[in-house]
Amino acid sequence: MDADLRTLRERLAEVSDLHRAMGVLGWDQRVTMPPLGTPARAEALATLGRIAHERFVDDELGRLLERLRPLEESLPYDSDEASLIRVTRRDWEKARKVPAELRAEMTRAAAQGHQVWVEARARSDFAAFLPTLERNLELRRRYVECFEWEDSPYTPLLDDYEPFMTTTEVAEVFGVIRPALAELVREAPRVEAGFLRGRFAPELQRAFAERVLATFGFTEGAWRLDTTAHPFCTSFSNRDVRLTTRYHETGLESLWSTLHEAGHGLYAHGIADSLQRTPLAGAPSLGLNESQSRTWENLVGRSRAFWTCWYEPLRETFPEQLGDVALDAFVAAINRAEPGLIRVEADETTYSLHIILRFELERRLIEGTLAPRDLPEAWNAGMRELLGVEVPDDAHGVLQDVHWSAGSFGYFPTYALGNVISLQLWAAVREAIPDVEEQMAAGELHELSAWLRDNLYALGRKLTPKETIERLTGTAGIDPGPYLAYLRDKLAALPAGA
Amino acid sequence: MDADLRTLRERLAEVSDLHRAMGVLGWDQRVTMPPLGTPARAEALATLGRIAHERFVDDELGRLLERLRPLEESLPYDSDEASLIRVTRRDWEKARKVPAELRAEMTRAAAQGHQVWVEARARSDFAAFLPTLERNLELRRRYVECFEWEDSPYTPLLDDYEPFMTTTEVAEVFGVIRPALAELVREAPRVEAGFLRGRFAPELQRAFAERVLATFGFTEGAWRLDTTAHPFCTSFSNRDVRLTTRYHETGLESLWSTLHEAGHGLYAHGIADSLQRTPLAGAPSLGLNESQSRTWENLVGRSRAFWTCWYEPLRETFPEQLGDVALDAFVAAINRAEPGLIRVEADETTYSLHIILRFELERRLIEGTLAPRDLPEAWNAGMRELLGVEVPDDAHGVLQDVHWSAGSFGYFPTYALGNVISLQLWAAVREAIPDVEEQMAAGELHELSAWLRDNLYALGRKLTPKETIERLTGTAGIDPGPYLAYLRDKLAALPAGA
Repeated sequence: MDADLRTLRERLAEVSDLHRAMGVLGWDQRVTMPPLGTPARAEALATLGRIAHERFVDDELGRLLERLRPLEESLPYDSDEASLIRVTRRDWEKARKVPAELRAEMTRAAAQGHQVWVEARARSDFAAFLPTLERNLELRRRYVECFEWEDSPYTPLLDDYEPFMTTTEVAEVFGVIRPALAELVREAPRVEAGFLRGRFAPELQRAFAERVLATFGFTEGAWRLDTTAHPFCTSFSNRDVRLTTRYHETGLESLWSTLHEAGHGLYAHGIADSLQRTPLAGAPSLGLNESQSRTWENLVGRSRAFWTCWYEPLRETFPEQLGDVALDAFVAAINRAEPGLIRVEADETTYSLHIILRFELERRLIEGTLAPRDLPEAWNAGMRELLGVEVPDDAHGVLQDVHWSAGSFGYFPTYALGNVISLQLWAAVREAIPDVEEQMAAGELHELSAWLRDNLYALGRKLTPKETIERLTGTAGIDPGPYLAYLRDKLAALPAGA
Repeated sequence: MDADLRTLRERLAEVSDLHRAMGVLGWDQRVTMPPLGTPARAEALATLGRIAHERFVDDELGRLLERLRPLEESLPYDSDEASLIRVTRRDWEKARKVPAELRAEMTRAAAQGHQVWVEARARSDFAAFLPTLERNLELRRRYVECFEWEDSPYTPLLDDYEPFMTTTEVAEVFGVIRPALAELVREAPRVEAGFLRGRFAPELQRAFAERVLATFGFTEGAWRLDTTAHPFCTSFSNRDVRLTTRYHETGLESLWSTLHEAGHGLYAHGIADSLQRTPLAGAPSLGLNESQSRTWENLVGRSRAFWTCWYEPLRETFPEQLGDVALDAFVAAINRAEPGLIRVEADETTYSLHIILRFELERRLIEGTLAPRDLPEAWNAGMRELLGVEVPDDAHGVLQDVHWSAGSFGYFPTYALGNVISLQLWAAVREAIPDVEEQMAAGELHELSAWLRDNLYALGRKLTPKETIERLTGTAGIDPGPYLAYLRDKLAALPAGA
């Protein structure tokens, strides 16, 4: 049995190394690669991906997992070993269900779709994008057929990003927050924020962001921050974490984007050493991962407590732009709710409404109750209903996001679920660290960072998302209560009128 | 046959992709990786290396090569296809001869040896390094036993870097240049060069180097230049070339180091598209590769013609340091010959003497006529004889180079062979482009760059080193004549006394 476990670990380490290598190739492609390197990089990534997949779906791995069942059952559920066998078995069974040639077609269609989408968006031409959308939907219907599901064909797609969650459960959560958010947005006061749209020198933004990040609890020499066109975070071990960001000359939004990626980075950084080079070295779901980027971006990075410490340093960095702006006015501005057209520019309150619209539409597309050609009209009607805005063209509407061009249906909900989960976990944080706000106000984030690491990040994927949330909060499942209470309190604290 | 050729290409493309991925991981490790990422990176590199090796030495590849023999024989010798089959067969046969566990031991010993060497050099403690040296020698003796050789057990080691060349042939070349160089160095005039050791702001050096590199013939968007501790060049296709350099605050030597790496980069950049993702995508030998780094560093970058164009821009960049220095004085300073202790700081004339010493010593170590413990004494005697310098300690003597700590015996000669070959090929350049000097003086390097690309770089590894040299020069083999004539002329042109 020990020999089998050792063999399992060796095989999984090899697959993990291949994925790590793909991560490095991907980071390099987005951060440093000369543009003409693209075709060769695509070939190298395809080769590594194919080898990693072949090695993972290997029959022998299945036999190993079968032989290890008695060991798994003899060990505590949340032990590294039992979790490794259990989680790997589920991954293996899922991976085996999809024929190699369908997988390859999906990958090819995603690459082609991306190029079509870039051009269609540039010309705001939905008709040009429609065949791509239809092709991706058809491939997803074939993908869904590989799995069993009960409530909706959307569930197997969701499972790739939010394992064990059903479409029905998502719809229930969104059914609660949808009307509540729409009402909050309608009633939100207008807040003066013009001073956030001045000129902010990128090198000063960068220096300030690095000062802040230095307090987040990263081990020195285990991470770095680079610039890129579309910010992301990746890691090639818990000691090699790569944050990326983009500085805008005319706004400070990069700061929160950086704190957001830092949240993802702290998750990767905190995964236990014992889980490295195994399938357990990750977050249980995208929603849980996102809960932590939102925690560091919003619950920390937009809190009055945090800025009690950091506003003076920021004002000293940008005296011309912020010299006349008081702390309260700054905190109000970065917490305001203001309906807009673009998801990635949305504030904390309106953001989930953008997501709910996408979830509702992509669910209907997959279930076949919305024809792809009717999507723009449905989009525009949804924006009117949920956010009260008129969509001027498809570039600022249905064509704005990359996800559908790559066939990533089921991904969107995790953004809003992350928002919801972040508040459930924050309640646990406040219980464990009653003076967390005082600590933030003193610029002290180490206890917070260490608590999240030890109680959440270190677990990796050992538990399911629900089990993970339950371990921290005592409540199984996703509860929108704390999230809505947080937004209500926040908006109520804004100065009325401006 | 066509299907076999297609299968061969597919298998080799896969191995090539793995090597390219390793290249990216290596570049990232040396240029950007946070230091604590080291252990995970070593694991990932080991996994990729193992998979690449396994896939290359596969029995089925040998059967494919055997079945393709008739096709190979039916095609012109230098066709892409015949060359691919022939060169791959030699690589495959060589790779199969070394047992996997010896290869693994060599890799492990190299990694351990590096750490021991770093510490031994820091303390100038040869005794601490001796066991590592002995271990590496023992492993190389076992390695040599895997091959057949006639003149010396050193020849199979040499073959890994300079294929098809024998120890005897190297000794013959070095036998000619050894006394000639020693005499040139003894009689070289002393030249004033103090102005090269002023303060030169790194950002200005970088900007100047980039202006120069922009004229070298690289396609825009197919390369980049970064900083690192130990400059190197790597590439992940002919459209993704990475140069690295290091700027010194108190000297201009980084410029020639950059031009040197650019020469390697142009080689990789010029390899034909049709050879990409095959074992032919490389230089025929390290000597030939080095001949081109030396061409761009020295034959271009230290020539009076080149500086006729570039000296004014350089002087405008550094008016304080060079304002009073005339072109002639500058050209004399960068071409002076001055014996020193350290190879990597050696000038163009003394450099090959450092190499000849290392060749003679490592050959004797491998042949068993020099005991490892007697190495420092032999080193110091050689430095006295060849360069007329006294070695103060082993850190500035036998411990200065990394190569032996990694067991890289047989590598050193390629540096000096590169110097020699560069002049043989340069004679062909002058014949093909009679006004190359006038072009250089006008800042025009495109014809030179394109000629070398089309006549040399594009060939990749299709021909052997000798065949490659013969194709360009009409002479088979390595002829030290042009190299010695070049150095004699250069030193004769220096102002006598200073």
